[in-house]
Amino acid sequence: MQVCLFEPEIAQNAGSIARLCACYGSEFSIIEPAAFLLDEKNFRRAGMDYVDKKSIKLHSSFADFRSAHNGRVILLDTKAEITYCKVQYEPTDCIMAGKESSGVPNEIFNACDTQVKIPMLDGMRAINVAMSVAVCLSEAMRQLNWR
Amino acid sequence: MQVCLFEPEIAQNAGSIARLCACYGSEFSIIEPAAFLLDEKNFRRAGMDYVDKKSIKLHSSFADFRSAHNGRVILLDTKAEITYCKVQYEPTDCIMAGKESSGVPNEIFNACDTQVKIPMLDGMRAINVAMSVAVCLSEAMRQLNWR
Repeated sequence: MQVCLFEPEIAQNAGSIARLCACYGSEFSIIEPAAFLLDEKNFRRAGMDYVDKKSIKLHSSFADFRSAHNGRVILLDTKAEITYCKVQYEPTDCIMAGKESSGVPNEIFNACDTQVKIPMLDGMRAINVAMSVAVCLSEAMRQLNWR
Repeated sequence: MQVCLFEPEIAQNAGSIARLCACYGSEFSIIEPAAFLLDEKNFRRAGMDYVDKKSIKLHSSFADFRSAHNGRVILLDTKAEITYCKVQYEPTDCIMAGKESSGVPNEIFNACDTQVKIPMLDGMRAINVAMSVAVCLSEAMRQLNWR
């Protein structure tokens, strides 16, 4: 399983997702620009000593990431209609999350293979993006027996 | 489903867990002392405008929490042997997480009904506590069809 963040804005979220990927053995990519540096204190603190900056794949655009990634791209988005745990995950899937403030542009939403959401009470907008990636990645890992 | 934090140390984690609970309709409790105030900026920022401070139940000790809670207490702990998704959750369960630095004391570990962990690669210690609560609570909600 892989995880990709599209133009992430909050260093702490990206750092704790990098740490999650290190703990799960998942590859971690960022589609640039990010609103922070990978040397930044908040990124390093959230990633703790788990994260090897050199292992993070950087892509200059969604198209660049898309051509480098052979599997499906599963987008986590509050505007999606399918609940994340109704999807059957494959080991070559990449789970992608958008910007904290605004998600992804429409053309990127549509360019992903599947769009999934996490169910919430009416009127509630979203949980923290790092949490939502952890929830979706863990469901995929559960289905694949933590391989 | 309910969530309880035992003597939490990091305001941001507690705030994003409070927001998670608000989004999922779960009750949220804290066993005091917490190392921060519920009025603190980092707590409020992570909780966003989702969290009503008055809805958070505060307990002065584990014993106090235990006597107020009628269901099982499922402890999330890296020292547990059971994988969190192998447990069959019940709507009256409470998922509890310990301190960020040191988890819970042994006597509290043993006083919980079940202890569960999230599987990780060898040599990896732990993902962020807010993420781990989100992963476990979402698995419980999935099993219970998001009731």
